[in-house]
Amino acid sequence: MKKIEHIGIAVSNLEFSNDLFSKLLGKEHYKIETVESEGVKTSFFVVGETKIELVESSRYDSAIAKFIEKKGQGMHHMAFHVDDIKKELERLNKEGFKQIGDIKEGADNKLICFLHPKSTNGVLIELCQEKE
Amino acid sequence: MKKIEHIGIAVSNLEFSNDLFSKLLGKEHYKIETVESEGVKTSFFVVGETKIELVESSRYDSAIAKFIEKKGQGMHHMAFHVDDIKKELERLNKEGFKQIGDIKEGADNKLICFLHPKSTNGVLIELCQEKE
Repeated sequence: MKKIEHIGIAVSNLEFSNDLFSKLLGKEHYKIETVESEGVKTSFFVVGETKIELVESSRYDSAIAKFIEKKGQGMHHMAFHVDDIKKELERLNKEGFKQIGDIKEGADNKLICFLHPKSTNGVLIELCQEKE
Repeated sequence: MKKIEHIGIAVSNLEFSNDLFSKLLGKEHYKIETVESEGVKTSFFVVGETKIELVESSRYDSAIAKFIEKKGQGMHHMAFHVDDIKKELERLNKEGFKQIGDIKEGADNKLICFLHPKSTNGVLIELCQEKE
């Protein structure tokens, strides 16, 4: 795991939070992207080598909608950049971490997979590999 | 805000979580530090330009103990590196963010101050300036 690729933050209203985070960070977001398969609309800010991803639910039954209902807005997941997601998942599975589902396409041109927070101290971890 | 200085993760058992995160990250922590004033024991890992700080409560009434009681283990705060914490707080207060208390000494040789999560979309934000 060479760097934190992004920190995902669950928000109720993307327009409001975009404005809030641009004030906080002193810069504008660089893109908005909808990920239909996940039922989310996302917005990205660059901070050094890392990104902040604001995630709004676009469907009442999305994982983000359920998270906000249960825990409220706030930090949702931490994503690490990996060079080879398949190889890294093999290593982590051997170490006892549990992946959630298969490798799939995520926002921002990535192949992604999540690890179950029960195996990672309550932290939802995402692995991200840049798509070619 | 030039970079994410660290991500703070609330853990119940530092020894167990140190082992877990060294397996996850494929590397060892570089230090353990107790911050008496906050009632916490911390452990740090480097990931690229950012750090991961595991935080265990060393007192039943610490902020971390209360957080874990309420929300369970998991991501607790996001810290940004700033060059001039006083100046940055002035800017943020003008923008409507609320600081929690005064600037104080934190772990890892830093001057720190938190922003109230009610003003930051539920995310507990820490500002960190390197001490001279």
